[in-house]
Amino acid sequence: MKKVTVYTLSEELGVSPATISKALNNSPEISPATIERIRKKADEYGFRPRPIVSRTTNICALIQTPASEMSCFSPYTVSAMEGMLKYLQEAGLEFSLYRDEVSKLNAGLLLRQLGRRGINGAVLINTDEDSAFYAEFEQQHFAYCSLLTNDGRSERLLSIDNVQAACEAVQYLIQLGHRRIGTLVTPAHGVTGRDRLKGYRKALKDSGLGVDPEVIVASEFGEDGLEFGNRETLALLDRHPDITALFVMGERVAVGALHAFYQRGLKVPEDVSLLSCDDPPEVAYLCPPLTVMRIPNRKLGYTAARWVHDMIEGTARERYPHEPWMRGELVLRQSTGPVRKTQP
Amino acid sequence: MKKVTVYTLSEELGVSPATISKALNNSPEISPATIERIRKKADEYGFRPRPIVSRTTNICALIQTPASEMSCFSPYTVSAMEGMLKYLQEAGLEFSLYRDEVSKLNAGLLLRQLGRRGINGAVLINTDEDSAFYAEFEQQHFAYCSLLTNDGRSERLLSIDNVQAACEAVQYLIQLGHRRIGTLVTPAHGVTGRDRLKGYRKALKDSGLGVDPEVIVASEFGEDGLEFGNRETLALLDRHPDITALFVMGERVAVGALHAFYQRGLKVPEDVSLLSCDDPPEVAYLCPPLTVMRIPNRKLGYTAARWVHDMIEGTARERYPHEPWMRGELVLRQSTGPVRKTQP
Repeated sequence: MKKVTVYTLSEELGVSPATISKALNNSPEISPATIERIRKKADEYGFRPRPIVSRTTNICALIQTPASEMSCFSPYTVSAMEGMLKYLQEAGLEFSLYRDEVSKLNAGLLLRQLGRRGINGAVLINTDEDSAFYAEFEQQHFAYCSLLTNDGRSERLLSIDNVQAACEAVQYLIQLGHRRIGTLVTPAHGVTGRDRLKGYRKALKDSGLGVDPEVIVASEFGEDGLEFGNRETLALLDRHPDITALFVMGERVAVGALHAFYQRGLKVPEDVSLLSCDDPPEVAYLCPPLTVMRIPNRKLGYTAARWVHDMIEGTARERYPHEPWMRGELVLRQSTGPVRKTQP
Repeated sequence: MKKVTVYTLSEELGVSPATISKALNNSPEISPATIERIRKKADEYGFRPRPIVSRTTNICALIQTPASEMSCFSPYTVSAMEGMLKYLQEAGLEFSLYRDEVSKLNAGLLLRQLGRRGINGAVLINTDEDSAFYAEFEQQHFAYCSLLTNDGRSERLLSIDNVQAACEAVQYLIQLGHRRIGTLVTPAHGVTGRDRLKGYRKALKDSGLGVDPEVIVASEFGEDGLEFGNRETLALLDRHPDITALFVMGERVAVGALHAFYQRGLKVPEDVSLLSCDDPPEVAYLCPPLTVMRIPNRKLGYTAARWVHDMIEGTARERYPHEPWMRGELVLRQSTGPVRKTQP
């Protein structure tokens, strides 16, 4: 029997060979009815088309962790990835997740690894001080942008003004009458945590209040927020029982802190106020629901994926301009209240 | 100038062409010092090796959601993916995430889509009743297994005995003296939720207690656990204030339920006990920390990735035998206690 090719089918069905090939590769250019008709005939002949080798543009979320067992799924990374997925799905592009230890990512040849996966661009979801691969990306004109970046090393940054966001959050606590406000600083490395700490200091200074380094605690890189938030809140309460409000920078730290107040029998917000950054859905269901400085992480992820796509297409701007939505927004719930009158 | 090839470098450095190629592709077979030496020489010549085209085996987490905007990151899917990542990282394989709407996954040609991404196998993290692509996978001998499956359609299943797990959980509540125990059933579709409901019924019947359909509420497919847990717990409390314990099947539902108790001024466990399935880290930090039937989702994810890898290598067993760790484990914390003496 003669070998069946795309031309056999073309002749038989009276459509072009290109149409046969596209149909069997499920191209959106071909109507479902035609695909069905061609597929049926191909099945009859037992004909299998060569797959179309052009791969869909693939953009990855690049996540670095301090150790191989660290989870890359925090409420923050999940929000950012959800935003990326939304854009990539709309644009018909592929989404990957590339996660490795910092030391391995920095060992060089990261671009080779990404290339082997068919990855065309990356959104750096979290990066720490020592992200040496930036230089490789820049040098090789790889399409990427960063949501949290180390200072100054890259202009491919998409972020809100974290100094301003934290400053507004702490100003609100000051307005409520709080004078002794502790803070737990996360993420520990990179500019985001530092900017938020700057905002905290600015709010206190602008209000004529002193900044006491004793009530500022920064996490270690890669430390779990739950445990850090719980342990350090307990320690702060022991060392500084005069603290009446706590400003934290992420949902897991807030859950750990709430638990510490619960363990010490303190009521929120009657005895102590808690204000966190970020606003994943679960914080509205905590007891009490959290007042937060909402960071638009989902929309930042969406915009980052679009920007990287534009870079791949060659239509991207070099820097991303500030847009009105790119800011923190204070969402008032029940974890903050007026300062307590007496010691608990 | 003569074109620089791998042979030029081979001659110059006195190592084999294969070594040059492997070194420039960062092969683990070549020592870092040799890689460094070869790379330096290659840079001098401006030589770029042809990338090694053989792609690493790529196993994806396949997640179906009811709508394009639904998150594919729940505490359960995250645990399972973390386990997968751990195995794939150990084995030097690639991890992908493939997520789409049920209707699109079922539209056929899923294997073609996976092929275009270079995906060699899949762990089905959640699948619903209508997962028509199983048939395609079977027919094409695609390497896959499922963590939550629809009944009987596939033997490539890795799961604990959910009937037994739920039965033990509810038996514990009965031992504490509870007689009116409500339940919120999730996931709503697929065998897992149904098996857990069977276990709930079995525990009640075995203890001579009646099963009241009025205190059993099942979620809609794709409904968010937080909102479902909160809304239906409030509704149950209104309709059946005599309920003294609630058995729920996931952390988000539990958070929603805890919030409902908080809204109604009920103390946990003094007024009402709460017992959930799954055991992500955050449940130990809720107020109060949750008593749970721990499901080894992370280890199931790890084992599933290993099994799919074995399938790809042709060394896998057809069915996965039951192993002692594949069971739920009751973890006692503070959300369960003896039945209250009086109405709240």
